[in-house]
Amino acid sequence: MRIAVLGGDGFVGWPTTLHLSNLGHEVHIVDNLSRRWIDTELGVQSLTPMDSIQERCRIWQQETGQKLNFHFLDLREYDRIRNFLAEYRPEAVIHFAEQRAAPYSMKTDRHKVYTVNNNVNATHNLLAAMVETGLDAHLVHLGTMGVYGYSSVGAPIPEGYLDVEIDTPAGKKGQQILYPTRPGSVYHMTKSLDQILFQFYAQNDGLRITDLHQGIVWGTHTDQTRRHDQLINRFDYDGDYGTVLNRFLIQAAIGYPLTVHGTGGQTRAFIHIQDSVRCIELALSDSPKAGERVRIFNQMTETHRVRDLAEMVANMAGATVTYLPNPRKEAEENDLIVKNDQFLALGLNPTTLAEGLLAEVVDVAKKYAHRIDRSRVPAVSAWTKDIARRVEHDPEGKRLRSVS
Amino acid sequence: MRIAVLGGDGFVGWPTTLHLSNLGHEVHIVDNLSRRWIDTELGVQSLTPMDSIQERCRIWQQETGQKLNFHFLDLREYDRIRNFLAEYRPEAVIHFAEQRAAPYSMKTDRHKVYTVNNNVNATHNLLAAMVETGLDAHLVHLGTMGVYGYSSVGAPIPEGYLDVEIDTPAGKKGQQILYPTRPGSVYHMTKSLDQILFQFYAQNDGLRITDLHQGIVWGTHTDQTRRHDQLINRFDYDGDYGTVLNRFLIQAAIGYPLTVHGTGGQTRAFIHIQDSVRCIELALSDSPKAGERVRIFNQMTETHRVRDLAEMVANMAGATVTYLPNPRKEAEENDLIVKNDQFLALGLNPTTLAEGLLAEVVDVAKKYAHRIDRSRVPAVSAWTKDIARRVEHDPEGKRLRSVS
Repeated sequence: MRIAVLGGDGFVGWPTTLHLSNLGHEVHIVDNLSRRWIDTELGVQSLTPMDSIQERCRIWQQETGQKLNFHFLDLREYDRIRNFLAEYRPEAVIHFAEQRAAPYSMKTDRHKVYTVNNNVNATHNLLAAMVETGLDAHLVHLGTMGVYGYSSVGAPIPEGYLDVEIDTPAGKKGQQILYPTRPGSVYHMTKSLDQILFQFYAQNDGLRITDLHQGIVWGTHTDQTRRHDQLINRFDYDGDYGTVLNRFLIQAAIGYPLTVHGTGGQTRAFIHIQDSVRCIELALSDSPKAGERVRIFNQMTETHRVRDLAEMVANMAGATVTYLPNPRKEAEENDLIVKNDQFLALGLNPTTLAEGLLAEVVDVAKKYAHRIDRSRVPAVSAWTKDIARRVEHDPEGKRLRSVS
Repeated sequence: MRIAVLGGDGFVGWPTTLHLSNLGHEVHIVDNLSRRWIDTELGVQSLTPMDSIQERCRIWQQETGQKLNFHFLDLREYDRIRNFLAEYRPEAVIHFAEQRAAPYSMKTDRHKVYTVNNNVNATHNLLAAMVETGLDAHLVHLGTMGVYGYSSVGAPIPEGYLDVEIDTPAGKKGQQILYPTRPGSVYHMTKSLDQILFQFYAQNDGLRITDLHQGIVWGTHTDQTRRHDQLINRFDYDGDYGTVLNRFLIQAAIGYPLTVHGTGGQTRAFIHIQDSVRCIELALSDSPKAGERVRIFNQMTETHRVRDLAEMVANMAGATVTYLPNPRKEAEENDLIVKNDQFLALGLNPTTLAEGLLAEVVDVAKKYAHRIDRSRVPAVSAWTKDIARRVEHDPEGKRLRSVS
């Protein structure tokens, strides 16, 4: 199959590219390399030494004989994405091409504005271009569990659609609706906006769309990134792009206390990078038909409270845990029960944190510990000006900034 | 009160400006004049002869002694809207500054892209700028009834929020959710996106927001636009910006059959322009508190089926009605029962179509009939490529294009 991977130079995009190429697909990476520019802006870099996309593609071809095609293209340029689709006519499009860090999206007003402008226009330009070129491709989009919000109604989170009953003059009537969204950051909000775009274009133009509501991806290596040192995936540990788990791993590797924000009672959903790329393969194999509603999968395999994760990593690495003020505006404690029946039914066999985490500590965090810039680990993007002031003036807040 | 009217040069923005100025408020019009540029693009013009915004402001001051302040500013320029808010610190912001025609938004891929880019960035830039400047202003936004979609669940459409029951392990649980949106065009979709933006900023930053889900506005004059010929409001009758009612009025005025698309069984909600500006005054008087959820009003006063409207106008003007293929993708027939209790409780006393329509036929449509460009009346923006082909090849379709 001819597949376009938009954002194919990114953290999940790159291993997805390799996974699909390894399966024999003709893969076209479309990327504006914005993630690398943001590293430059923030003055941070991947823990793992990461080559240019051109060099990575060269190595992959050398190792496998499979060619990867790289297109330097910004989805905000409508004409260029339309021309790309018209010329290459991919049979499937995997869309990762959005700014994907919640803390980065909340950093300043300009980061909010950039995130909305970039993400909404990228997704909408793609949809409009698919309609305009008459492309009958299956669009698989990487969304986030965060669109649901974390204030559960007390029932397990279903896969995208919620059964509700509504009072009508003729009595109660059952209906299935898009789960009422409650995004917790500007980044997550853009994925909520995407859902509405997808609903419209599936309904009006019959586009075939699958939206993957992904949990926090952990792990660095997949079978394909392991094939050569220069194929290694990125590992972000800075306060903006590093997920909570990656920051714990780094803190453990350099012998510092693991920093939990708030009580650590926040429950989050997780998935290993190897399972993530496998899910995309599974989603591709099972397209909705034209005219069907958007297919939504929850792409996660387990849930954990942040403080339990911290304990798990601390025990493995012999580190301690410390509690700091939370720069995010969120519930201190939440339960999270998530359905993921659809991927399990398609044959997903998850890698658990309990079995895979030690390898991350040893093979990644400790191996590259000499490359860690300690000053970049703390998460300092505050969700509101009030929180920023509190974190700033609180003695704990000073510790937050100076913990490294 | 110091009030910024974003989009204050537009069809509802201009009479709102005059209404608020007449009440003694200090009004700042912020507009990029895009609506005038679109007239130029489409080669159409308001039926009523409309002066420049600068000239209109001069006449208003001459008539009333009240100064109107005009700021030529595009909300897509984030820095400029932030600087404007920081400098003038309005106590209320009325936000009309979005592309507001469904047919225009569906015209071509470029019009879809423009509408999403313009509307989403305008609204989001405004919200981010309000947070950044610490402005504690009441934001009143003009939304649309179209966010609900027209496939009713069989119950009256509530004001923004729907009561539902959800199955939980502990039994059924009642909850109030944002009404599940089902926009029917790219334009309507952008207002659905706005709702998510408002929900987030009200929740995260405590912005005070009122969202008005407006029906189709009819009528041309308000008490204030009547004060001088040069204060007259715009009257659009072209296939993109002219509402169904305006097009009927024009067809009646020039003695042509009124063209109903499809069966005319579509039910729509209506409100007179005088009531619309009064609603904005009422909404301003009743702000939510910081931390409260977005307040949503249905800003409409009556519902009618399109074919009944056609009959009403035809009877008044002695015209006939003819039925043509529908360029929109929508249900042929729909019921629409809408709650508008909140505005009625605040004292709104509606002008009905039955009592106000004849004045529109005589005072506007017939008075300016010599300015009608007959070729611009038909609505030709098709919702999908399939529909475009059908309308094009159908003999009825030819009639649609040549009816004038």
